[in-house]
Amino acid sequence: MAVYTDITDEELALLLADYDLGTPVAFKGIAEGVENSNFLLETTVGRYFLTVYEKRMREEELPFFLDLMRWLARHDYPCAAPMADRAGQTIKRVRGKPAAIVEFLPGLSVRRPTAAHCREAGEGLARLHLAAQGFPGTRANDLGQEAWAPLFATLRGAAEDLKPGLAATIGADLDRLAKAWPVGLPAGIVHADYFPDNVFFNAGKFAGAIDFYFACVDALAYDIAVALNAWCFEADGSFNITSARALVAGYERHRPLSDAERAALPVLAHGAAMRFFLTRLEAWGATPAGALVRPKDPLEYERKLAVHREAPDLVLFGDPA
Amino acid sequence: MAVYTDITDEELALLLADYDLGTPVAFKGIAEGVENSNFLLETTVGRYFLTVYEKRMREEELPFFLDLMRWLARHDYPCAAPMADRAGQTIKRVRGKPAAIVEFLPGLSVRRPTAAHCREAGEGLARLHLAAQGFPGTRANDLGQEAWAPLFATLRGAAEDLKPGLAATIGADLDRLAKAWPVGLPAGIVHADYFPDNVFFNAGKFAGAIDFYFACVDALAYDIAVALNAWCFEADGSFNITSARALVAGYERHRPLSDAERAALPVLAHGAAMRFFLTRLEAWGATPAGALVRPKDPLEYERKLAVHREAPDLVLFGDPA
Repeated sequence: MAVYTDITDEELALLLADYDLGTPVAFKGIAEGVENSNFLLETTVGRYFLTVYEKRMREEELPFFLDLMRWLARHDYPCAAPMADRAGQTIKRVRGKPAAIVEFLPGLSVRRPTAAHCREAGEGLARLHLAAQGFPGTRANDLGQEAWAPLFATLRGAAEDLKPGLAATIGADLDRLAKAWPVGLPAGIVHADYFPDNVFFNAGKFAGAIDFYFACVDALAYDIAVALNAWCFEADGSFNITSARALVAGYERHRPLSDAERAALPVLAHGAAMRFFLTRLEAWGATPAGALVRPKDPLEYERKLAVHREAPDLVLFGDPA
Repeated sequence: MAVYTDITDEELALLLADYDLGTPVAFKGIAEGVENSNFLLETTVGRYFLTVYEKRMREEELPFFLDLMRWLARHDYPCAAPMADRAGQTIKRVRGKPAAIVEFLPGLSVRRPTAAHCREAGEGLARLHLAAQGFPGTRANDLGQEAWAPLFATLRGAAEDLKPGLAATIGADLDRLAKAWPVGLPAGIVHADYFPDNVFFNAGKFAGAIDFYFACVDALAYDIAVALNAWCFEADGSFNITSARALVAGYERHRPLSDAERAALPVLAHGAAMRFFLTRLEAWGATPAGALVRPKDPLEYERKLAVHREAPDLVLFGDPA
């Protein structure tokens, strides 16, 4: 939770003057998102979100993300469509930072997803993959498998600080993942950060996804692997096979997996756990004491890594067959 | 800006089960208010705010504040009415803390009020004083004139740290205020924290007030004095007489001041500046380095104190006569 950029009523009025979105009625900073500043904006015309992109966002990538959101919204996927100003621009500047106004997407995220939520989330993920088909933009996954070993080279000391002996364990994991990493799986646009806080429900039904700022082109099944890690572990660290089955079954209602994709799920899930372990480890060390944002505990993903390392078949039990 | 208490979807559902307010559609932590945790809550029935009262709120005082808000809303004053649950309760508990659901009040606060905003704010303040007439609750102003000397006794060192020699200056101010403090002025419910961030506008017109958690019984003109300090100083520390005139004129459209009230405005304004100087000084010293909430600079009010000390007639120029 963080609001980094403070917007005055005058700056807001100046921004809105470029749009046909009426005049502001309410404007509130939202304690949501650690990367950007988000504001709920109600006007005489409708409700929107204003996002001001902070320094971690590479501005040259914004058109990809916003074009994707617009594409998805136009292809009946429930996501927040960016609003264009009178000149057709979706990317604006506020206080010298890039900013965008998007539609308000209603819905509630869940903290502790049930198997029923996992089924719905799986459906929502498959619908996302299908809706994105034909999207002309492309972006490489800069946090994909090839990026992990170079990233880890800078984090060996941090891993040892976290847990003595961990650097060697992670190094062995990375070797194993590099050898076993699948190639040739069906690829397309993936969300790449499909966590419970990025998925909305309404009365228990999937209602939309937000935060497409890690979206990229990768194996579609990798998105399922990210979701299995994010949705199907209990607070005590155990993997919930019922939830995993439900998530995959929900996904397959819209997009059945190939045999190759199904067979790849264990290594993809191991790799997805590695990706979040590494970036959390990096943020953990980089965050000064007393910072406004508390980094997420890398040990959560260290434990998930251990599960995939020691019981690689576990996620296959998610297969309803 | 702060969200101290984190509410899960399950806790929210449990809370809403006691009300006839439908089921949740959206729920977002708001980066607003430093004393309490605030959430925007949209349900199938309407839009609300959920406030969770943090440790600085004395729970035994909550009924006064919520009853006042309900009274004001029922007397056509635009403020957020508390919602009662099926048992008629407005004060609930969430995670062991007191909490209340209030109506969503639309409107925008202004950062740099113009004279036109000050006129509207003055109108809104007089309307508040009139709407509160007959309210049966009562609460002493525990930050009123009698509280300042005892509070300052604990802050002499902090004042000296802020500015060498300041302790003696403040001590002399307190003596002068004690001697000159008016008695017998028309009294009633005052907001006591009528700052620009607690007042909403819609298309430049007064649209309501929020944050009644300092409300108490005191001289009505003291509320004007608080507002003159909060609304009518420029960023460079100068007092804007045009804005002050507009604020008082707006107030008098609904409730003309007596001669005694008008004559008391300079000392009341000096005292109101003292009240905010002292509490900011107290918070300044009490806030640990790296805390999530940055305290407000006490020097802002030290400068306002100096203006009232050296030019006590200044606020009288706000008199349109």
